[in-house]
Amino acid sequence: MEFHLLHRDITSQARRGRLITRHGSVETPVFMPVGTQATVKSLSPDELVSLDAEIILGNTYHLFLRPGAERIGRLGGLHRFMNWTRSILTDSGGFQVFSLARINRIQEDGVVFQSHIDGSRHLIRPETAMQVQAQLGSDIAMSFDECTPYPVDHRYALESMQRTVRWAGRCRDSVPPGPQAVFGIVQGSVYPDLRRACLEELQEIGFDGYALGSLSVGEPKEMMQEVLEGTLPRMPAERPRYLMGVGTPEDLVEGVNLGVDMFDCVMPTRNARNGMLFTTWGSIQIKNSRFADDPDPIEPGCPCYTCQRFSRAYLRHLFISKELLAYRLNTIHNLSHYLRIMEEMRRAIEANGFQEWRRQFHAKRV
Amino acid sequence: MEFHLLHRDITSQARRGRLITRHGSVETPVFMPVGTQATVKSLSPDELVSLDAEIILGNTYHLFLRPGAERIGRLGGLHRFMNWTRSILTDSGGFQVFSLARINRIQEDGVVFQSHIDGSRHLIRPETAMQVQAQLGSDIAMSFDECTPYPVDHRYALESMQRTVRWAGRCRDSVPPGPQAVFGIVQGSVYPDLRRACLEELQEIGFDGYALGSLSVGEPKEMMQEVLEGTLPRMPAERPRYLMGVGTPEDLVEGVNLGVDMFDCVMPTRNARNGMLFTTWGSIQIKNSRFADDPDPIEPGCPCYTCQRFSRAYLRHLFISKELLAYRLNTIHNLSHYLRIMEEMRRAIEANGFQEWRRQFHAKRV
Repeated sequence: MEFHLLHRDITSQARRGRLITRHGSVETPVFMPVGTQATVKSLSPDELVSLDAEIILGNTYHLFLRPGAERIGRLGGLHRFMNWTRSILTDSGGFQVFSLARINRIQEDGVVFQSHIDGSRHLIRPETAMQVQAQLGSDIAMSFDECTPYPVDHRYALESMQRTVRWAGRCRDSVPPGPQAVFGIVQGSVYPDLRRACLEELQEIGFDGYALGSLSVGEPKEMMQEVLEGTLPRMPAERPRYLMGVGTPEDLVEGVNLGVDMFDCVMPTRNARNGMLFTTWGSIQIKNSRFADDPDPIEPGCPCYTCQRFSRAYLRHLFISKELLAYRLNTIHNLSHYLRIMEEMRRAIEANGFQEWRRQFHAKRV
Repeated sequence: MEFHLLHRDITSQARRGRLITRHGSVETPVFMPVGTQATVKSLSPDELVSLDAEIILGNTYHLFLRPGAERIGRLGGLHRFMNWTRSILTDSGGFQVFSLARINRIQEDGVVFQSHIDGSRHLIRPETAMQVQAQLGSDIAMSFDECTPYPVDHRYALESMQRTVRWAGRCRDSVPPGPQAVFGIVQGSVYPDLRRACLEELQEIGFDGYALGSLSVGEPKEMMQEVLEGTLPRMPAERPRYLMGVGTPEDLVEGVNLGVDMFDCVMPTRNARNGMLFTTWGSIQIKNSRFADDPDPIEPGCPCYTCQRFSRAYLRHLFISKELLAYRLNTIHNLSHYLRIMEEMRRAIEANGFQEWRRQFHAKRV
């Protein structure tokens, strides 16, 4: 994998870059739609291409449990399995093990957990996580980390961060030679000193990119901001920077402003399935009765497939009637909204106008 | 609406025709996908166009209750509401009132029933059914009939059929002048004499097409066959003949063989959502574990979107994981299968080879 830093905005820390993987190029800053179970829920691969998604995220934890990574490997890898020809980043399974599964034991060797699907017991070691991601054949693999909950005291955060660093070393050592890139994950909870220390140790190991984990997990916004401001400037400029699991449109803009290159979040897709739709002035609940007779699209002027063809009245009807098409049309709109924000930011950075663009972005919100 | 009888197969009763509505032409024999709640479940209008669907069916009963026919009328009619630019046939609501709602009273004036959604009470009169269909703006409206359950004795079947005829007259009288075509529905249960009598009375009233209702409702196949053989030859050759709510691929072939022009059924779409997929040699349950590692498409050689891109292993994974994409991909395959059978039959009729085609169709089934 290559990463080219193309331009830095002179009005902010925002960066314009390009990732190049075996499966194509990815313009950054980029938002990666989440395809948990080998599908971005409700969408076909062609629809993702129509939305100009250049990279999606797959969840190692889910695919490990079902249908199984060995099976996907035998069937030619995740790209072929789900018929997605562009880039894929897989997470390491760490976050889901800590958020979805029932943890039995965190030990130096790895994590013993029970499947959220059938209660079966599994041990995931750092080496397992890398082997599974190799079987999936993703373009970018993530190292296996302990996701620190919020809040934890400094002592536990330190202990956890140090284990994550030791695991990161084992991940790096166990990656088979090949084209798969590996990113390290900076932990350290809300403590800037721990984040910095973690970053330094990960850089000594050496990764193709660096991610920030366990943010937007319940801490106040200012704390996330403080961690970002304290850590991002110290990250190596020539490597991509990935803020994991974040966030709202505002979070994306603030992250880019501080120099983040990559994001992922279930928010646009999950909220779409719950009827919450994003617009430039905020969000709407499509089930609201005031839309029952509304012939307008979700957002007038929006170029997405949904807005070009369907009224709020129709989308409300589909949602109220629990029609399958509702989830898809809502998902298309929300992802289109997210990806267009990213596209606008990329253009603003190229024109050295990011700060002005950011001001207008916030001014439009009501 | 125009109907042109283009050709009769010399080896059978099969007919090749063309319906022309305000919204385009429809090659017959035709299968109409069912779009109950202003959507063919899980599909976009564009996907229906890709499948070469030229006409779909909308359900008056469902749309009357939710979102309401007046509302759809205010929003420009059903075509605009759901963004479908080709032809639509609406049923009269009769079948759903008798199968889904709780009937309070069948009286000469109409039917009092309770909504299956919220228990609200409604009276549908024949005039109501036509007014609702006019508000929906369908190309073809169906007259309001009493759907006879199976079994009923000859005496009740007669009484019910006579009421249906009286209602048909009121429907015909209440249709506002305009481009909307109206079909009469032949009732009479499994009694060929009642079917014939009903058809004669409907012809006296005069309709743009004639349908056979209350078949495939539990009666033995031979009884449906007997009714078809006894009624179809007496139907006016210059009007389209519509066998309502039928059926399996075999039913379509046997119907066409006896001279049916139009069909509708939830089977391809509903079964798709239950994981039952049609192939030329029969059907498969995609959840079956023998497909877990199967890299082949549902049916090798099938030109549909699903078969061109995805393996049985992937489709099984999606279905087992209850992923929304499963229902869509399965629906695309099943509808493609149905519509291709119709296309093949139309070509066989044109070539005066229907009987040979039908023999081969049955020979392929295992």
